[in-house]
Amino acid sequence: MLHQTWSRLVCAAALVFAAAPALGADAPLSLRGMGSFHIGGRIANVAGKETRMIVRQPGGPASMLDPNGQFMVEPMYVQYFLPAERKGRLPLLMWHGGGLTGVTFESTPDGREGWLNMFIRKGWDTYISDAVERGRSGFASPDVWPSDPTFLNYQDPYERFRIGEGEGSWNADPAKRRPIPGTQFPVEAYDNYMKQTVPRWLSTDEAVIASYVALVDKICPCALLAHSQGGAFGFRVAEMRPDKFKAIVAVESATAGVLANAPKLKDVPVLMVFGDFVDQHPRWAAFKKIDMEYAAAVRSAGGSVDWINLPEIGIKGNSHMMMQDRNNAEIADVIQKWLAGRGLVE
Amino acid sequence: MLHQTWSRLVCAAALVFAAAPALGADAPLSLRGMGSFHIGGRIANVAGKETRMIVRQPGGPASMLDPNGQFMVEPMYVQYFLPAERKGRLPLLMWHGGGLTGVTFESTPDGREGWLNMFIRKGWDTYISDAVERGRSGFASPDVWPSDPTFLNYQDPYERFRIGEGEGSWNADPAKRRPIPGTQFPVEAYDNYMKQTVPRWLSTDEAVIASYVALVDKICPCALLAHSQGGAFGFRVAEMRPDKFKAIVAVESATAGVLANAPKLKDVPVLMVFGDFVDQHPRWAAFKKIDMEYAAAVRSAGGSVDWINLPEIGIKGNSHMMMQDRNNAEIADVIQKWLAGRGLVE
Repeated sequence: MLHQTWSRLVCAAALVFAAAPALGADAPLSLRGMGSFHIGGRIANVAGKETRMIVRQPGGPASMLDPNGQFMVEPMYVQYFLPAERKGRLPLLMWHGGGLTGVTFESTPDGREGWLNMFIRKGWDTYISDAVERGRSGFASPDVWPSDPTFLNYQDPYERFRIGEGEGSWNADPAKRRPIPGTQFPVEAYDNYMKQTVPRWLSTDEAVIASYVALVDKICPCALLAHSQGGAFGFRVAEMRPDKFKAIVAVESATAGVLANAPKLKDVPVLMVFGDFVDQHPRWAAFKKIDMEYAAAVRSAGGSVDWINLPEIGIKGNSHMMMQDRNNAEIADVIQKWLAGRGLVE
Repeated sequence: MLHQTWSRLVCAAALVFAAAPALGADAPLSLRGMGSFHIGGRIANVAGKETRMIVRQPGGPASMLDPNGQFMVEPMYVQYFLPAERKGRLPLLMWHGGGLTGVTFESTPDGREGWLNMFIRKGWDTYISDAVERGRSGFASPDVWPSDPTFLNYQDPYERFRIGEGEGSWNADPAKRRPIPGTQFPVEAYDNYMKQTVPRWLSTDEAVIASYVALVDKICPCALLAHSQGGAFGFRVAEMRPDKFKAIVAVESATAGVLANAPKLKDVPVLMVFGDFVDQHPRWAAFKKIDMEYAAAVRSAGGSVDWINLPEIGIKGNSHMMMQDRNNAEIADVIQKWLAGRGLVE
């Protein structure tokens, strides 16, 4: 009988052990819904250009292309995932950085789970978007947007995002590249990271913000997890809709909001997160200074801004793309703990 | 006792009834995994252009933009969903049409579930991609691709995709538009459909095909569900990798493969599906004729091509975007039945 009870305890322990991966990458993701939609956008009018016949598929019939008329421009693509067991009290929005898309959060260049899966597993209704001009949001013609898109060099993020040791660390021969010693970025998969990058315009901020506002008006109140340029958009949208944001997590926000408007965030809890090697890289030290000034302005107005430099809590080696670094799960847990501390987790 | 048995039967019936929505939009989607990756692509070299300083975010520090050097171009974005209860014997690839992205399959413009959710619910490991140049696959600079992108008029698909009654059916005032009587397209959500469209190039076919081949080499043997221009790519890729395709469902393929290569598909079961109003619209009659000639060439070589004109099996009113039409679930069932008939469903 004692033996039998002992067996049962062993079995129970085994079950607990077997259940442990239920929180990790091997466990099923159960969703009560998923889908996508586009939001925002406007109809632009183009006039005065000549029509022409084009063949859209080699071998197919010709059809008319009329560059004039009305065009649907500047909508934003949003994909959402609703976990079967919802634990986040509000929707969680994920806004990516410049020259990137929502793919930032989906997976990692070396094929591990990204923050999307992790936060769904933590029970958040999660909405990932591609900012206007990027990815599945499409882009407008030169008749509508006067500027040209810019394209990232293959080596640019390597030297700029604290993957390599700054300028000169890149080499076309992977064996001769100089990654930052101790980096958590999966450098062997840098190729795959570069495949995620998309062209960007430098003149579309107002259109980007208009569609983010439309998303916020549809989905929020909510929590926002924003990265890099997405942080700058996040703070500017929060200044316009402060009642809609119950928490903002800004991961290496590059730049922040408009200083004069910072007091509007006095009732929005904010967390700013920076990775490793920041102070040694002038570009990131500059962004950090801008964010600190914004944080100070929010605090001066009575607001709450928490600040985590990851190395100071023992999490080392993180690049600007920390959601894809090898220890991305550890950082997700830091963010989750902060969100829970704001009363946003059931 | 009899009464008790009867109660049990009633309860069982109630459970069956309660379980019925498990096949529909309100039931949880249980996944054993999901994620995304990019595949294919190449490094392009650009030389001889001047460098310049740019500010990437208003208010941020300036940094150098060098248009020269190496660029990662022509990769393809792929998102995958693996159902917990797999029933499809092979992965199912979904390839969208021209000027569109994988969004085609995700949802409908009026917010219903798309074929992605439906085929996951049917138990298929499903891979949705954005063809090279489109959506999250990004696009290359004018230094790499010599041609310009083309942009669809707001009214173009309305008149061309058998939503409205052909040329002249569009009007900027929704009340004055002339949809085809009996159309299944959610015309009230046409705005949202147009938000899904993206610019396209007319000179990138070889790059598109190269990345599709890379995907097929990674994921297949598989089944392919292709729409419109995606069908043309599908047949051309299948001609290059006939052993990798165990079934091809071509939904209004616009155009087909290369006639001379059609015999290579002699061991690949093919289903061609066309919607309603095809013969009255010269453009679609032309595509249908091209597909019929290709089908005849495959059959002449001993291959098997099934053909369904939906109205002939009682499914009426379907536009070119049938996966978004109101009866999209009914058409998904027709396709599923055909796939099952090929022995591809457990």
